[in-house]
Amino acid sequence: MKKLLTLTLALLACGALTAQTLKPIRLSQPNLERGKNIMQTLKERRSIRTFAATPLTTADLSDLLWAANGVSSPDGKRTAPSAMNRQEIELYVCFAEGAYRYDARTSTLQPVAPGDFRPVKEAPVSLILVGPKDFALAPVDAGIVSQNISLFCAGVGLATVPRASHDLAALTQGLKLTDNQTVFLNHPVGYFKK
Amino acid sequence: MKKLLTLTLALLACGALTAQTLKPIRLSQPNLERGKNIMQTLKERRSIRTFAATPLTTADLSDLLWAANGVSSPDGKRTAPSAMNRQEIELYVCFAEGAYRYDARTSTLQPVAPGDFRPVKEAPVSLILVGPKDFALAPVDAGIVSQNISLFCAGVGLATVPRASHDLAALTQGLKLTDNQTVFLNHPVGYFKK
Repeated sequence: MKKLLTLTLALLACGALTAQTLKPIRLSQPNLERGKNIMQTLKERRSIRTFAATPLTTADLSDLLWAANGVSSPDGKRTAPSAMNRQEIELYVCFAEGAYRYDARTSTLQPVAPGDFRPVKEAPVSLILVGPKDFALAPVDAGIVSQNISLFCAGVGLATVPRASHDLAALTQGLKLTDNQTVFLNHPVGYFKK
Repeated sequence: MKKLLTLTLALLACGALTAQTLKPIRLSQPNLERGKNIMQTLKERRSIRTFAATPLTTADLSDLLWAANGVSSPDGKRTAPSAMNRQEIELYVCFAEGAYRYDARTSTLQPVAPGDFRPVKEAPVSLILVGPKDFALAPVDAGIVSQNISLFCAGVGLATVPRASHDLAALTQGLKLTDNQTVFLNHPVGYFKK
C-alpha cells in the first residue's frame, strides 16, 4: 500500500513537471492580405475529413485563431459576433503534446494541460469550441465561430470539418472545464493530404 | 352585425387577391468574382444597425441568399455545412410587400404570404432563419448560416446584424410555420445609410 502511494505520488510529481513544460505561445499578427475573395471562399468550403500530419506553421495557426474569434478592432470587437456581445465562446487548441486556451486579447496560447486531447488524431491540431451551459444563445454563437474557421480554411487552402461528436467527459476533465462549461463543436485542422 | 360580416368577407377576399399577386421570383446566378478576400472580410465584419431604405438589386439579393445557404456543387452541397448534412435551416425572405421562402435548389423565392413581417422595418429586407425544434444541433447550424450572411455583407459592403429578438408568434403565423418549426435568428440587410 505504501509502495502504491509512493508510486502514485511519483507519477503525480512527474505529471506536474510535464505540465510545467508547456509554455505560453506567442502568435503572430494576422495577415489581412491572405485568401480568396468571399464568394469564391464560400464556393470552395467543404467538409474535409482527411489531413496531412504536418504541423501548422505559426503563421497559419495564428491566422486561423484570429479568423475564428480574434480581436479585430482597437476597442475589442471580435471577428465573430456574439449575442449581447457576450464573447462567451472560448477556443481550446489541442496538439499531440498538450492543450492550450486561445487568449484573443494578448494573441497568445495559454497552457492548460499536457496530453493529447485531440478528438481526431490524424489532424495536427483540433480547435475545441467551449461555452457556457446557462446561455441559450451559446450554441448559435458557437456555430458563428465554427463558420469563421470553415471559411478561413476554405479561403487559404486548409482542411477542416465541424464535428459535434467528441468524448465530452474526457474533454471536460482534460481541458479543466468548469461545471457550467460544455463543448459545442470540435474542428480538426490541417493541410490537405496529398 | 351583417354589415360587419360583409366587410370582413370583403377584406378576406381582398387579402386572398393580394396573396395571389405575390409571384415566384427567379434569382440570378452567383457572381463568384465579388468581394474582398476572406481575411479582410473578417476584419471588416461589424454589426450594423442602420440601413438605407433602398431595395436590394436582384443581383445583390441573389448573391446574398446563395452566400447564406445556396447550392454550391452539382451534387447539392451547400455554402453552409449542417450537422449530418441535414440542411435543415430554411431562409424566409421578408420585404414590405410580403414574405417568400428561399428555394436553394431552383434559385427562386417562393411566395408565402403578403404582408410586412420584417422585424426591422428600416431595412428593405429581413432574412428569417427557421429550423426544426426537435433537432438539437439546429441552433448551431443557424449560427453557421448567420455568419455566411454577415461575412457576405462585410465582403461586398452591405449592412447587416444577427438578431435574436423578434415576435415569434407573429412570424410563426405570418410565415405559416409548422408546430415543429421555430425562428432562431433574423438578419435585416440593406445598403449602408449615407
